[in-house]
Amino acid sequence: MEQRDSRTAPPTLGVGMVGYAFMGAAHSQGWRTAGHVFDLPLRPVLAAIAGRDAHGVRAAADKHGWAAAETDWRALIARDDVHLVDICTPGDSHAEIAIAALEAGKHVLCEKPLANSVAEAEAMVAAAEAARLRGQLAMVGFNYRRVPALTFARRLIADGRLGTLRHVRVSYLQDWLVDPDFPLTWRLQREHAGSGALGDLGAHIVDLAQYLTGEVLVGVSAQMETFVKERPRLDDASSGLTASGGPRRGPVTVDDAAVFTGRLASGALATFEATRMAAGRKNALRLEINGEFGSLAFDLERLNELSFHDHREPAATAGFRRIVVTEAEHPYLEGWWPPGHVLGYEHTFVHQARDLVEAIASGTDPRPSFADGLQVQRVLAAVEESAQKNSVYTPVQAVAAEVR
Amino acid sequence: MEQRDSRTAPPTLGVGMVGYAFMGAAHSQGWRTAGHVFDLPLRPVLAAIAGRDAHGVRAAADKHGWAAAETDWRALIARDDVHLVDICTPGDSHAEIAIAALEAGKHVLCEKPLANSVAEAEAMVAAAEAARLRGQLAMVGFNYRRVPALTFARRLIADGRLGTLRHVRVSYLQDWLVDPDFPLTWRLQREHAGSGALGDLGAHIVDLAQYLTGEVLVGVSAQMETFVKERPRLDDASSGLTASGGPRRGPVTVDDAAVFTGRLASGALATFEATRMAAGRKNALRLEINGEFGSLAFDLERLNELSFHDHREPAATAGFRRIVVTEAEHPYLEGWWPPGHVLGYEHTFVHQARDLVEAIASGTDPRPSFADGLQVQRVLAAVEESAQKNSVYTPVQAVAAEVR
Amino acid sequence: MEQRDSRTAPPTLGVGMVGYAFMGAAHSQGWRTAGHVFDLPLRPVLAAIAGRDAHGVRAAADKHGWAAAETDWRALIARDDVHLVDICTPGDSHAEIAIAALEAGKHVLCEKPLANSVAEAEAMVAAAEAARLRGQLAMVGFNYRRVPALTFARRLIADGRLGTLRHVRVSYLQDWLVDPDFPLTWRLQREHAGSGALGDLGAHIVDLAQYLTGEVLVGVSAQMETFVKERPRLDDASSGLTASGGPRRGPVTVDDAAVFTGRLASGALATFEATRMAAGRKNALRLEINGEFGSLAFDLERLNELSFHDHREPAATAGFRRIVVTEAEHPYLEGWWPPGHVLGYEHTFVHQARDLVEAIASGTDPRPSFADGLQVQRVLAAVEESAQKNSVYTPVQAVAAEVR
Amino acid sequence: MEQRDSRTAPPTLGVGMVGYAFMGAAHSQGWRTAGHVFDLPLRPVLAAIAGRDAHGVRAAADKHGWAAAETDWRALIARDDVHLVDICTPGDSHAEIAIAALEAGKHVLCEKPLANSVAEAEAMVAAAEAARLRGQLAMVGFNYRRVPALTFARRLIADGRLGTLRHVRVSYLQDWLVDPDFPLTWRLQREHAGSGALGDLGAHIVDLAQYLTGEVLVGVSAQMETFVKERPRLDDASSGLTASGGPRRGPVTVDDAAVFTGRLASGALATFEATRMAAGRKNALRLEINGEFGSLAFDLERLNELSFHDHREPAATAGFRRIVVTEAEHPYLEGWWPPGHVLGYEHTFVHQARDLVEAIASGTDPRPSFADGLQVQRVLAAVEESAQKNSVYTPVQAVAAEVR
Repeated sequence: MEQRDSRTAPPTLGVGMVGYAFMGAAHSQGWRTAGHVFDLPLRPVLAAIAGRDAHGVRAAADKHGWAAAETDWRALIARDDVHLVDICTPGDSHAEIAIAALEAGKHVLCEKPLANSVAEAEAMVAAAEAARLRGQLAMVGFNYRRVPALTFARRLIADGRLGTLRHVRVSYLQDWLVDPDFPLTWRLQREHAGSGALGDLGAHIVDLAQYLTGEVLVGVSAQMETFVKERPRLDDASSGLTASGGPRRGPVTVDDAAVFTGRLASGALATFEATRMAAGRKNALRLEINGEFGSLAFDLERLNELSFHDHREPAATAGFRRIVVTEAEHPYLEGWWPPGHVLGYEHTFVHQARDLVEAIASGTDPRPSFADGLQVQRVLAAVEESAQKNSVYTPVQAVAAEVR
Repeated sequence: MEQRDSRTAPPTLGVGMVGYAFMGAAHSQGWRTAGHVFDLPLRPVLAAIAGRDAHGVRAAADKHGWAAAETDWRALIARDDVHLVDICTPGDSHAEIAIAALEAGKHVLCEKPLANSVAEAEAMVAAAEAARLRGQLAMVGFNYRRVPALTFARRLIADGRLGTLRHVRVSYLQDWLVDPDFPLTWRLQREHAGSGALGDLGAHIVDLAQYLTGEVLVGVSAQMETFVKERPRLDDASSGLTASGGPRRGPVTVDDAAVFTGRLASGALATFEATRMAAGRKNALRLEINGEFGSLAFDLERLNELSFHDHREPAATAGFRRIVVTEAEHPYLEGWWPPGHVLGYEHTFVHQARDLVEAIASGTDPRPSFADGLQVQRVLAAVEESAQKNSVYTPVQAVAAEVR
Repeated sequence: MEQRDSRTAPPTLGVGMVGYAFMGAAHSQGWRTAGHVFDLPLRPVLAAIAGRDAHGVRAAADKHGWAAAETDWRALIARDDVHLVDICTPGDSHAEIAIAALEAGKHVLCEKPLANSVAEAEAMVAAAEAARLRGQLAMVGFNYRRVPALTFARRLIADGRLGTLRHVRVSYLQDWLVDPDFPLTWRLQREHAGSGALGDLGAHIVDLAQYLTGEVLVGVSAQMETFVKERPRLDDASSGLTASGGPRRGPVTVDDAAVFTGRLASGALATFEATRMAAGRKNALRLEINGEFGSLAFDLERLNELSFHDHREPAATAGFRRIVVTEAEHPYLEGWWPPGHVLGYEHTFVHQARDLVEAIASGTDPRPSFADGLQVQRVLAAVEESAQKNSVYTPVQAVAAEVR
Repeated sequence: MEQRDSRTAPPTLGVGMVGYAFMGAAHSQGWRTAGHVFDLPLRPVLAAIAGRDAHGVRAAADKHGWAAAETDWRALIARDDVHLVDICTPGDSHAEIAIAALEAGKHVLCEKPLANSVAEAEAMVAAAEAARLRGQLAMVGFNYRRVPALTFARRLIADGRLGTLRHVRVSYLQDWLVDPDFPLTWRLQREHAGSGALGDLGAHIVDLAQYLTGEVLVGVSAQMETFVKERPRLDDASSGLTASGGPRRGPVTVDDAAVFTGRLASGALATFEATRMAAGRKNALRLEINGEFGSLAFDLERLNELSFHDHREPAATAGFRRIVVTEAEHPYLEGWWPPGHVLGYEHTFVHQARDLVEAIASGTDPRPSFADGLQVQRVLAAVEESAQKNSVYTPVQAVAAEVR
């Protein structure tokens, strides 16, 4: 019988997570799994999680495999065995926690959207830049960049397979607010969530549009709507996507839906739709990009597939091909299963963990950076401004010339 | 051997058609076929077609089965054997021909878009209203209303199967302008075509959005773009979708693409995209409508299918069902083939011919009326105005409260 | 005003059709339309149709556009204005009518399956060969060979795009017999229909398997089943797919379903399934062919699409591409609409009419020939023999070495 | 700071795994994850794995998270900290290891196919039955039963939603042997793998056909083929799906493909196809089941979706609905993500681990049992026998009357 040889084991990276609801569960799965699938230079250790409710956080720690539980995120940040702080709380606390963690010398992974306002996001970028000088890294959790089909899509575009881009159309459709009696959770309150479908779903598709094309959005024209103005109040705090409400109703203070058009730096036209009111669409992030030489299409409900049309082929045999993105050559697939043995939603968090661990080990900047998160935030702010100003085209000040 | 019993044969309806390119061929197929598939109260007779080129119009008459050919549309209108004038010319001549035909006592079918401007469309509506008092009928050729799946979709919505509507998203994607060397045909010249993708494709999807929902669009916010500014000039006139150009280039004076958002009278949000630059999309008119009780989805490239989600079903077995719209109960299907024996594009023109013949025989108003065409024209004008005014939300003055 | 110039009009081909139910309607549409879409060397004239019921055949002639009606098919064959006899009757009369028409000096088009037995089919081939020496042509109506996507599929295979073939899998699924109260029409009686799903649906997929691959089936192993043994009798004769029955029940004497495996001459494995009991499948003729270099897939309910996988492409971008078979380069498409403007079921009959007219004008042999029909008949007979002999592998004697 | 409260932690279940290639990795992921997703009555502990190569097994243990490594599976079985032996080796060692483990008092999970012969499988069933009297449980790893869409499909069928079944058609298509230079790994050698596509893929679809319908297959008629007779020899042992060969070639002694038809106990017809030669199909396990009241369809490459047609609905709105099987009501979904956040291949192993742990804790018999594995083995043996006997229909002796 042989024992693990500790002399050759990789050094560890202590992770501390704040928040333990849906995103906390997904991030936990990422941290637990990444080292068993990929050969990582650092071994992630699930050191501690923090949450306000002592019983809840203890149960979550046990369930998700975290060694310790804290009821104050400041205590978590202060722990010596925590090298990286992973922030999975609602958006209203992102800035405070992230800045404190960076100031405490920790690496930071912050869930999207980066913040609830541009000002907060700018402060976070500043903190990240200061920390970078001390060798600390910061990343924002736009996990869909790490769907293999989308990572591969970006590569095809960067390789020029689409040529000059003409159109980007992206929609992110869910339906959990169709029922007018779905209760007034924190996600429907502006003070906690910042915005509704816009920040939750729109942030993803704005980031993807920029990531996939490598271009920034330079302006937008928008309409937003809250179809159901009042919903049943929760008697006590609820943090999840599912909950039940009481008899009293309170005002919904965020948008149910946002639709907007935009321009990419190259002049391509973009259309966006984010809604929680599309009956029958569960997690339908759909995108299509058309260029001079070809097109790409994708649907998150079939996330192992990428459709690619090569317009330079003979017309008689051209057409959108369904690429099953599970070949060893595809991004992230070297660690997984044989072709056609498909991946799921949570794998994006495994990939995110891998990439961040590798960035920390090598000292390179992980993407999406806080600056990328700020770029998205500025677009979202322009969307809200345009919606308030009769949909007038509203320019976006770019954080950087291109998106990587 | 028996002979046809002329005593029981239905009376005839003499049709005269102006124009004989793509639309002319499609309309001819409709007129030739309708009486053999449906039991019509009047038998359409392909009396005469008109075109400026004597050789061309003669050849077209022979090919498409018209008894006579005229080189002047005024002569066609003057013929006693022509009771209905079918206008298949570019948009710049619609108003003049339609008004003249109505004044000459003929029924009129006019291809879409109704006209190249709101003013022309208003004059046509006035002429149609005056003619109506004399018993003449006028109809505009939004043929996609007569795709069985879409006719059926309207019925489902009118029956309340979707409940209050939240979202309409429609795109009409083609790719025949992706090649920058596609030549400068009349469809790319403002003086003939009025506009580009907007009037050609956008008119269809605006009409469908209003027809399917039964609601008018009350305002829009738009962006338009001409990606390829100059194209090879044609040495001689070309009237078709396919042609080849010479070495000299001239300016494209219409849009390659138009994207816009809008509001329906009920408050539902609508998004529209019309483009001829979507590589790989041939005739992809795609729409989805989401309501409180369900959703519908459709793609013109699979025009026999309608996707319907009933949100009031138990969640565990709910989902978008693929209805193959070929049952005897489906609109127009009583005349065609057994279930699953699919129809195609041209059948919309057969259905259009049937419905117009029946309306004439019964003296009822055919839809879409010229007023429906004007309603679309006003939306298109608002789209152009918004695009010129920095995408600002631009109201549309409704022709009528609802669309039938 | 110009008149048709009769000096340049093509000579005519008088068509006489026997039978006027579903197939008669479809063939009529083919004959009426072919000359208006394609430039034909002979103009088809719908001279006369024959049917036993005087009133019915007269009404059918009026409805479908035939100049005359006969109540005896012998009288139809005898007409001088009939040059081609088109047989659309149930299978039990094919041999007698076809042989008589050939002996009377007419060209013949006979609906599939060619006959109800191998012996009949052999006699028909002999008659066709004798007539061929007199310049007459004979063709069997496997119309699906003329779905553009399938004609194109054959071309790709013949061009070697799939390499050596490994697998052919074809199913033809319908559901009109799922209801146990569907009545006992002629299609369910062995003496009229010969067999059930096997001859009706199985004949199509056997022919397609051989046509697409260019290879004959050399043997089969089969199971057949009649799930519903008795059905309501019809009080009077019914000839169609839809009818209603009375209270008395009678025995179903044909198969509801046939499943069989087979071998192509090259050694490829083939699987077949023909059934009228697949709830929800309306006209789902689905096939997939796998070869060393690639694969093809097709579904008749989406007949404008062909899926093609090129296995020699780099794995990372390979996948089944959805070819929308509506390009001008695709078979038969030169006469129809712009790309993406889709065709339907009935167009196969227009294409069949075109090809037969061209063959007659040029004196070349049309395909599928009666010998091709006999080849299918031998396969069907082997299927029945195998099913009766405990599914034992049953060789098929090939009519010719390859199928064109 | 709180510590894990060991007083409330569930007792542990020590798992010992034999073999660490593809299946070993997948099972490891299942054991590591199940307790973090579901509330399990026993906490699985990854105690030890066994493999012949000392270096390899040590590396695998580290990579996949196993505490110890053994180079002899007998030593693994002998460990006190191993309560359950999970067998992930090639089929030729299943019987020996499983029987030894059962005799040593361990629970057993054995990968499919249960064995390489009926005799081995029968011995395993006998050993399992004897062990059952001592309270030990045995299960065979047909993991696809635990794809939520398939578990749900069985439930719908068991609830009578399809009525009397008529047709089952299942194919399992892969393409990793299309390349004639793919090397001669153990999976292509009869002495190790037992059979080729038949045992590897065919076993899955035979089990699924029986599991979903709840019926046994009573007889089969089959053809099998080895298209590529010789392949490059491996210089050294290779255990995986991917490998490279040397210049010398050796005989392939298993089938590349098996096609067969069969009968279910109720009389329904079934068709099966298992192949590794379907270019472009990666892991395409496709099935469709048709019954009197409806149909179901599924594709493993889109494993989150189930298509369901309810034939008792009005025809005008009936159609195959695409159920996204990610609702909280769906099997296994209570532990995972919100609707539309899809699962992948490996989740079947998490579900398998959960169900086995629960069975052990409650002392109930897990399914699929070794007897279920024997039932599949008998079908596979009948397939081989039929293929050798000219495809003659070959009865299968049922292990039990129905399949649960």
